[in-house]
Amino acid sequence: MSQLIATYVIHDEKDIKKKAEGIALGLTVGTWTDLPLLEQEQLRKHKGEVVHIQELEESERANQYFGKRLKRAIVQIAYPTVNFSADIPALLATVFGKLSLDGEVKLLDVTLPDAWKKQFPGPRFGIDGIRRKVNVYDRPLLMSIFKGIIGRDLAYLTEQLKQQALGGVDLVKDDEIVFDSDLLPFEKRITAGKAVLNEVYEQTGKRTLYAVNLTGKTFELKEKAKRAVELGADVLLFNVFTYGLDVLQGLREDEEIAIPIMAHPAFSGALTPSEFYGVKASLLLGKLLRLAGADFVLFPSPYGSVALDKEEALGIAKELTDEKEPLKQAFPVPSAGIYPGLVPLLFRDFGVNSIVNAGGGIHGHPDGAAGGGKAFRAAIDAALAGKSLHEAARENEALQKAIDLWGAVEVTS
Amino acid sequence: MSQLIATYVIHDEKDIKKKAEGIALGLTVGTWTDLPLLEQEQLRKHKGEVVHIQELEESERANQYFGKRLKRAIVQIAYPTVNFSADIPALLATVFGKLSLDGEVKLLDVTLPDAWKKQFPGPRFGIDGIRRKVNVYDRPLLMSIFKGIIGRDLAYLTEQLKQQALGGVDLVKDDEIVFDSDLLPFEKRITAGKAVLNEVYEQTGKRTLYAVNLTGKTFELKEKAKRAVELGADVLLFNVFTYGLDVLQGLREDEEIAIPIMAHPAFSGALTPSEFYGVKASLLLGKLLRLAGADFVLFPSPYGSVALDKEEALGIAKELTDEKEPLKQAFPVPSAGIYPGLVPLLFRDFGVNSIVNAGGGIHGHPDGAAGGGKAFRAAIDAALAGKSLHEAARENEALQKAIDLWGAVEVTS
Repeated sequence: MSQLIATYVIHDEKDIKKKAEGIALGLTVGTWTDLPLLEQEQLRKHKGEVVHIQELEESERANQYFGKRLKRAIVQIAYPTVNFSADIPALLATVFGKLSLDGEVKLLDVTLPDAWKKQFPGPRFGIDGIRRKVNVYDRPLLMSIFKGIIGRDLAYLTEQLKQQALGGVDLVKDDEIVFDSDLLPFEKRITAGKAVLNEVYEQTGKRTLYAVNLTGKTFELKEKAKRAVELGADVLLFNVFTYGLDVLQGLREDEEIAIPIMAHPAFSGALTPSEFYGVKASLLLGKLLRLAGADFVLFPSPYGSVALDKEEALGIAKELTDEKEPLKQAFPVPSAGIYPGLVPLLFRDFGVNSIVNAGGGIHGHPDGAAGGGKAFRAAIDAALAGKSLHEAARENEALQKAIDLWGAVEVTS
Repeated sequence: MSQLIATYVIHDEKDIKKKAEGIALGLTVGTWTDLPLLEQEQLRKHKGEVVHIQELEESERANQYFGKRLKRAIVQIAYPTVNFSADIPALLATVFGKLSLDGEVKLLDVTLPDAWKKQFPGPRFGIDGIRRKVNVYDRPLLMSIFKGIIGRDLAYLTEQLKQQALGGVDLVKDDEIVFDSDLLPFEKRITAGKAVLNEVYEQTGKRTLYAVNLTGKTFELKEKAKRAVELGADVLLFNVFTYGLDVLQGLREDEEIAIPIMAHPAFSGALTPSEFYGVKASLLLGKLLRLAGADFVLFPSPYGSVALDKEEALGIAKELTDEKEPLKQAFPVPSAGIYPGLVPLLFRDFGVNSIVNAGGGIHGHPDGAAGGGKAFRAAIDAALAGKSLHEAARENEALQKAIDLWGAVEVTS
């Protein structure tokens, strides 16, 4: 029998075993012991089951906060996949629909049977496909972000794009709060962006990809994305959590939208940070985004001011790149608060198959965005070669200036 | 200048005024004081502004929980609407995109300028339109829910539907975890359901509407919904939070899908319950669902085992029915744990323009679902007439049996 196993952490005053059994029945066949045997036979393959309960020690912190003693447990429940269709909305409605409203319950993980996974697309390009596009195989990629673009015009945007590309970044992404407007129309961002990136390519021989923010109403996104493809867009940036995971999947599955998709974590913080409620970050931003088809996933790095707990950030990256999954790997993009001096840390924690992504750490460089890019590229090369940043900076002025400004975290293994 | 005002509650160790100013700039023009005057002139109409900060007393509970002293404040920030397109994803990405990831911040409310509201549909039918459909103008409506339908076949479903309709309920809704399957195909549920409800109508003269669960992949929903309309479906049930608010709006805006939409709160508990994170229930389930076009909104009642704080539940109902809004009213449907003895409470708290919705309180009646419906209808009539339930039960055997089984909460004004 094909089952999906959902893992929760539950805080409850009452008996958790009983609660777990109530969930397993309530979210499947409803009742059991009072059913006639014949009906039990008929319904057995639809019945949810508690497969594991791991009691945890009480948390004094939680008890104090709620002003009562709460039992705590990790609970695993198996749901027969015959009960729902193979799409993320059905999955969520089943394992965390009504249940999300039922007290202190957080969804930590879902384990899908392999046959069921195959009904999901996963990334179209994945890490290998993206590497082919940027022709970089042996180092973390480097991405930069537009800054202060709201209210500006196309000339401002393309000039900023040019400066970033001149620094040797592999990708530049739109600000996620840039929408389709008279000042910065979607189609013109693509065509004007492309023109300036071709200019830089002719000058430097380096290809930079531009991720354009796909925005607007859900049922107009596909037409817009197709138009983007026609105009030669490199990558689509997408605020998936303001739309829905299945909207991302719908874009990914459309053969006429065969360009990479970069998932932005905007709004996901409404779901992930509580220890009592919501969905664990590694599931939402890791497993489910990969399943739905994101080629890149941005998430807060563990180092910046907008920071994610390190274990959570590593958990996302692991889900995106786990080689045991029958899906292509997606690029982890730990973001926010990144400057060149953090590259050794990023490299130690996220490895070669990740993307170094910076905003202020590129634009705030004393030599401007181009200098910022050069400093990062030098820092990445140093990390790969096992050189210290200070050593590398002796041969790279841009890196030296970045270290003078922001400092450097050396990693000794 | 047209502005949208977002209200947050923020817990932070550091100065909240400074944080608020950082948000207002960071989510709009980026920087300000270091800009040349000419650029300030150019960008002024795009600049976010802190419009109000109400400091709150520190919460000992929060301080203990986080192990540090946190300042607390209600913060209001104005975002020029020129910065984003008139759709819910753009709104959320702007006011709670990156910000949702930035520490202890909960989005409480958004106040939209009237001109901007007009770009949203609101309910197609609303309370008045639904009342015309069921031909009931002067009392709360009565709805019931299928029970234990997973793994059952169409004959079982239609028999349950019939029993519920025979009790005089105005609406019956699908279980939100019933998907389109071989056992219970979407189209057959509509046609077979319609047939049995017509039978009951011929027998009793009472029309009951059936809300069929619209499920599947996002980009296939419209075709499916249109097919449902062709087949004569009465109402669509929709797990909006497993899809996205804008998907609901897209369904609402399609002129070929001109039937009422019932929003189910499944998965919304991943977003609303924390006092530190997420989105306040009255905004998410109230204001935004009405804006997007839900005709009915289910949410946990304040009385059952899966309960919502009473103030939160009333807050949702207020947003759905507020007459000052330039949108039709949506029906509040406080759900879960409702039995006939609670009707006086429901009536006191939610008034005549609400729906009494029951599962176990219908099906668990000693005379079956038909008896449950009759008991509820009698309880509603009693509440309207200002009669006590015990008094009403003297003339209504079904109500008496319900009171004997579950008790009754009398309300004295």
